[in-house]
Amino acid sequence: MRWNGWGDPAKAKDLPLAVRALLPMLLGRVRKPRPAVELAHVQLEPSRLTAEDHAAFSAVVGPANVDDAPESRIRHAGGRSTPDLLRRREVHQDAPDAVLRPAHHDEVRACLDIAVARGVAVVPFGGGTSVVGALDPERGTHHAVVSLDLRRLSGLIRLDEISGEALLAAGTTGPEAEASLSARGFELGHFPQSFRYATIGGFAAARSSGQNSAGNGRFDTMVTGLRVATPTGDIELGRSPGSAAGPDLIRVFLGSEGIFGVITEVRVRVHPIPRDRVFESWSFPDFAGGAEGLRRVAQQGDGPTVIRLSDEAETAVSLAQVGKIGKALAKGASVVTVYEGPGIAERRARAGVQLAAAGGVSAGEGAAEEWLKGRFDGPYLRDSLLDAGVFCETLETATTWSNLQTLRSAVESTLKDGFGDAGAKSYVMCHVSHIYPTGASLYFTVLAGLRSDPVGVWGAVKARVNDAIIASGGTISHHHAVGRDHAPWLGHEIGETGIRILRAIKRELDPSGILNPGAVIPAERAH
Amino acid sequence: MRWNGWGDPAKAKDLPLAVRALLPMLLGRVRKPRPAVELAHVQLEPSRLTAEDHAAFSAVVGPANVDDAPESRIRHAGGRSTPDLLRRREVHQDAPDAVLRPAHHDEVRACLDIAVARGVAVVPFGGGTSVVGALDPERGTHHAVVSLDLRRLSGLIRLDEISGEALLAAGTTGPEAEASLSARGFELGHFPQSFRYATIGGFAAARSSGQNSAGNGRFDTMVTGLRVATPTGDIELGRSPGSAAGPDLIRVFLGSEGIFGVITEVRVRVHPIPRDRVFESWSFPDFAGGAEGLRRVAQQGDGPTVIRLSDEAETAVSLAQVGKIGKALAKGASVVTVYEGPGIAERRARAGVQLAAAGGVSAGEGAAEEWLKGRFDGPYLRDSLLDAGVFCETLETATTWSNLQTLRSAVESTLKDGFGDAGAKSYVMCHVSHIYPTGASLYFTVLAGLRSDPVGVWGAVKARVNDAIIASGGTISHHHAVGRDHAPWLGHEIGETGIRILRAIKRELDPSGILNPGAVIPAERAH
Repeated sequence: MRWNGWGDPAKAKDLPLAVRALLPMLLGRVRKPRPAVELAHVQLEPSRLTAEDHAAFSAVVGPANVDDAPESRIRHAGGRSTPDLLRRREVHQDAPDAVLRPAHHDEVRACLDIAVARGVAVVPFGGGTSVVGALDPERGTHHAVVSLDLRRLSGLIRLDEISGEALLAAGTTGPEAEASLSARGFELGHFPQSFRYATIGGFAAARSSGQNSAGNGRFDTMVTGLRVATPTGDIELGRSPGSAAGPDLIRVFLGSEGIFGVITEVRVRVHPIPRDRVFESWSFPDFAGGAEGLRRVAQQGDGPTVIRLSDEAETAVSLAQVGKIGKALAKGASVVTVYEGPGIAERRARAGVQLAAAGGVSAGEGAAEEWLKGRFDGPYLRDSLLDAGVFCETLETATTWSNLQTLRSAVESTLKDGFGDAGAKSYVMCHVSHIYPTGASLYFTVLAGLRSDPVGVWGAVKARVNDAIIASGGTISHHHAVGRDHAPWLGHEIGETGIRILRAIKRELDPSGILNPGAVIPAERAH
Repeated sequence: MRWNGWGDPAKAKDLPLAVRALLPMLLGRVRKPRPAVELAHVQLEPSRLTAEDHAAFSAVVGPANVDDAPESRIRHAGGRSTPDLLRRREVHQDAPDAVLRPAHHDEVRACLDIAVARGVAVVPFGGGTSVVGALDPERGTHHAVVSLDLRRLSGLIRLDEISGEALLAAGTTGPEAEASLSARGFELGHFPQSFRYATIGGFAAARSSGQNSAGNGRFDTMVTGLRVATPTGDIELGRSPGSAAGPDLIRVFLGSEGIFGVITEVRVRVHPIPRDRVFESWSFPDFAGGAEGLRRVAQQGDGPTVIRLSDEAETAVSLAQVGKIGKALAKGASVVTVYEGPGIAERRARAGVQLAAAGGVSAGEGAAEEWLKGRFDGPYLRDSLLDAGVFCETLETATTWSNLQTLRSAVESTLKDGFGDAGAKSYVMCHVSHIYPTGASLYFTVLAGLRSDPVGVWGAVKARVNDAIIASGGTISHHHAVGRDHAPWLGHEIGETGIRILRAIKRELDPSGILNPGAVIPAERAH
């Protein structure tokens, strides 16, 4: 992965001409920023790992796997939020003091024991695609911090073809998992936008949501078992597909983002590779009509494998990208649907009835097929926008169907007002990427013509948006998770009693607080 | 509800003649037991609630709602397991020292505050249908124990028809919830065998499973929000249908059986009342073939609303009940399916293909329709058996499809060996009541011709069965929950680290340990 951007550098793309033409209309003129620093010129503080620390970790994972080379440290210095990428354009950067690369569960276990004994903070690192600051090299109260890179814990450990369950090592990436499963005729089918780089353990730790939004959308519903190394002991969970043996402790670790333990193995539901795939796009007069269509489909059940609704602003820009800008702006809102698996014809017919009843018009296969082709490429576009001096970031939330419009308006107006107060024009796009019987997610992409201090301005705007989300009944994150960026708002989501529960689990499992300091749980106020 | 048995005394039934004829063949001759004690002759210890305790609780809920009348105490003295019912046949009984009946959340909150201040243990009580000892009047280290009866927290608080979400007070019973929802055209559709008496809060606290096993089976997937009063603070959870805002703390309370807090409100997914219902029964040569059919249906997805498989032994007795004993014993295993909601014809056709491919033969509507009519009546039959001196109890577990036969054989042989070692013949029946893509539940009913000490013998047999379940990869409970009966085995299910997590949450939320002492979390070993 490109060290200061997204994905394969060979796949980086220039902005489509139509988008380039559109930007000044939307955002005014923006200045091209000064060039980003080159990797070789980044200046880091020296590693704070002592020689004794180094030797102790080396004894466990081997000297080659205690890596304090600047490039390795820089590549593990954070995730892929826009502020992360902007910070990587600067000369002076913070980074973990070393990267550890354990090979299996027992080495993870031993690394944690050493980290506890030596007072070294540990940031578990999977694919490095966090966009909420979950990978910041925070030392907390410790003298050093290591990035615990889990990529060597890779591969399909066991496949139970009868039960449709696969046991995967936590550092297996999405494509690696699919490749090993497809060799046996199976599929996991979890496709978040980070799919090409993110790991199975990361999906679990962050409660990922895949783009098969109505099929295998939420990773937390696909996980049937976990193996976790905590600083005070191991745990294996998930004896059966359904259980009433006390609270489901798998859920304590799903969404824990490495603060309670390091997920080393994940058992997941898999299914035979679907044979057929059918695409259908729909057009709606407006977002509200499209949302009503999605609601009807969600509540009827057994609909498409993928369904997403882009609002008017996103529909226009999407169409601009494929060179249909003239037509675009009159197009209203658009829905793409993809059907896989059994019963496609019936499911498509039944969903179609609901979409049509809400005012939708079927618009052929084209747009849905285009969407599928480009579905992992959004982040490349962001890199091109940043290179062109355009600020671009995403954020997401979710709420009930009855509150969807209220929440969407609140977020959109807060974004526009926030950038407006900073003297910048902005363009806000929204889509619904995940539907549930009782509600849906809202995913926002914002472009802004910021003249200076994008990290600072965005910090202030994002804080206002988070406040607005809480005030308007949304969740602080639908699938990006909490990390450090959302931690100050978590108390509004789960209350002080909820925070106390998290702290109690943290104290029990990680009493010295070595794991991912500052992530998820907000700092205690000084007394 | 009958104080020492199940349900409406008017509905109590004599054993069907065919069953009466069958029993001596299966179990040998059993002695009719001496008659059970009458309610008026039960002898309780005097209430240990002090006058000051009484006054303090009265100040909150009113004197009429601090009830220490013997009948009220006896009616709150436990659940409805067979040992519970056998103990109620004796003259000397244990019971809570009083029954508190708060009217709303704030009164629950105040009761907890007083209980903490005065050192009184509190056992939350919904419908009283626990079969795992979750309602035993345990005092723990406290001088008295009260039963916190939640039935006055009743009714539909709010219905969001757009989102399909209902907010229900925790003490609302199944029928009350369905009545208030059906007046608005909606249905909850959660039908455990305890449906007629159990409460919404109890469904949540025990991770109930309903008989709409492939539709709205697991209550934990239907809950979208909770309000809980803990001894150290309230908590409201569930801001959105999907979230990645840290671990899902709703799951900390689902399955907590009153040890962390008292659930006072439950938000649940509801759906429009289905218009149509179609029944179809299937016959299989044996249980293994039927299980293969269910697996295929589960993994295909979108199958029947209800699907259950009875093994040969259960099929025979079920048929005996409806007077078809002769035919029965040649019948193999039977499956009932019920279809409700949209797309019935297609779903039935697709499921039928899978059931036929596994060797099933469609057997008309009859048996499935019969099953639906009698589905809440099983416990009445148990009362009749106990009256006739026949021991009868149920237990359940779950595992993956690939392990299903192994687990079933292990439990069955352990039951037979256990009763055999006590000199008793037994008859073991098994059905699959809940299916998942990766596995299924196993529900066992055992009849035994015990001559003496049924509670003691069953305790020993059940312990061996629990050991066998753990050794064979099953869960200690699929939907009966943990209570006090399964607590000693929970450590085998979730490990020592899992138990430490539960203890940490308990210490944080209920530091004085007033809530349901001894339930769920096994006692710490003395050092």
